[in-house]
Amino acid sequence: MQRLANVRIVLSNPSHPGNIGAAARAMKTMGVARLMLVNPERFPDPVATARAAGADDVLQAAPICQSLDEALHGTILAIALSARQRDLGPAPLSVRDAASLVLEQAECGDVALVFGNETRGLSNEDVQRCRYIVHIPTDPAYSSLNLGAAVQVLCYELRQNALSGAPLGQECTAGRVTPFSSPPATHEEVERFYAHLRDVMIRAGFHDPLHPKRLMPKLRRLFGRVALERDEVNILRGILDAVDKNPGLDRSNH
Amino acid sequence: MQRLANVRIVLSNPSHPGNIGAAARAMKTMGVARLMLVNPERFPDPVATARAAGADDVLQAAPICQSLDEALHGTILAIALSARQRDLGPAPLSVRDAASLVLEQAECGDVALVFGNETRGLSNEDVQRCRYIVHIPTDPAYSSLNLGAAVQVLCYELRQNALSGAPLGQECTAGRVTPFSSPPATHEEVERFYAHLRDVMIRAGFHDPLHPKRLMPKLRRLFGRVALERDEVNILRGILDAVDKNPGLDRSNH
Repeated sequence: MQRLANVRIVLSNPSHPGNIGAAARAMKTMGVARLMLVNPERFPDPVATARAAGADDVLQAAPICQSLDEALHGTILAIALSARQRDLGPAPLSVRDAASLVLEQAECGDVALVFGNETRGLSNEDVQRCRYIVHIPTDPAYSSLNLGAAVQVLCYELRQNALSGAPLGQECTAGRVTPFSSPPATHEEVERFYAHLRDVMIRAGFHDPLHPKRLMPKLRRLFGRVALERDEVNILRGILDAVDKNPGLDRSNH
Repeated sequence: MQRLANVRIVLSNPSHPGNIGAAARAMKTMGVARLMLVNPERFPDPVATARAAGADDVLQAAPICQSLDEALHGTILAIALSARQRDLGPAPLSVRDAASLVLEQAECGDVALVFGNETRGLSNEDVQRCRYIVHIPTDPAYSSLNLGAAVQVLCYELRQNALSGAPLGQECTAGRVTPFSSPPATHEEVERFYAHLRDVMIRAGFHDPLHPKRLMPKLRRLFGRVALERDEVNILRGILDAVDKNPGLDRSNH
């Protein structure tokens, strides 16, 4: 996470102190702490502090700059956020590629993401001071992305990238594969479960081996998707034992 | 983008109308329009409308539900957002994998992302009604993600995924989820299966509601990973009916 410490979030000419506070909060949730303000209309302001909701350390540490150049002083990479296409502007990058590039360069020095005014965005002059331009892909029919929300999206991508990057391997990733809380069931444990299930279904009159109707393939298809754990197989077989031994005791409320 | 139209954003017990408005705005920028509110503390409210900033059509179309089950009625997939790890909760997914799964399933029916109260999050009971749980990876030192910001992150990921996945080609496949051979079971069909399973286990003496020992959460965790189809629910309930009515006829070879 050292790399995130080298990332500056620059807000150029923000109008509303609430958005400055929301940006600080958005940053801090993602482990990004360096906010720089270029000519904010109202700052400091109690509305900013209220919206920061505990991220007021980020606000307090935020220098107020007189120009974008001042805010970008010492950086080795600056990327502009813009809702508009610009003729002859810097090269466009996707959000994800931008996050990746920012973190890569943050290994070597300070980098900046530059956000414009809520209404006007960034001036062409400001955009030209950045090496790349990023557009968050909003719905063309309603592209009114809140400033704090835009900062949230970028900082989220930075953190995602920082977490998924480098050594980590798959550890936290691979989401769809459920981390085992019990060891995975072995092939033979699962097969014994299927045999048990089949026996119980036959005894209950639900399954006729002479007219199987693809019942077992259907159940295998179902449980085959699960990656059963050993504990789960034990529970399922426990249920089978119980229902097999005990006739329904009370039909009335069923 | 048709798939985004099948996505429901469910806010369960939101306290602050401003966050409802921010969520609506966040959704609309990403082309997601279906907001559902479960027992909002204050709604409708002028603060919500103000923060929605032009996304008031999303607010106006948002139904107010009395329970999470009502909000999830008819869905084939529900995913809970949670800042906390839960013992024996649903299987975890990364944000990105969740977005991918949501869009994949949205080809086939309605899907829901469920967000909890600003302070308390989702109740365990609510979480249990979802098939997966997603944690937005915040900085452990400050994880105070604003509700609207969390909605923004998820909707952003949905849109990113929808844009990048354009041609798709794989439909409902994508390896882990088996293509449907029968329509996916709806939320209420699956809930009826759980209720049926619970009844049968109680009658069989396997489950003691007074000493539940987390049996139902374990079974929900198991079947939650499967993406049950309607035919499969019917088979499972058929088995339950059969074993419930018919005592084991022959113990000897077991």
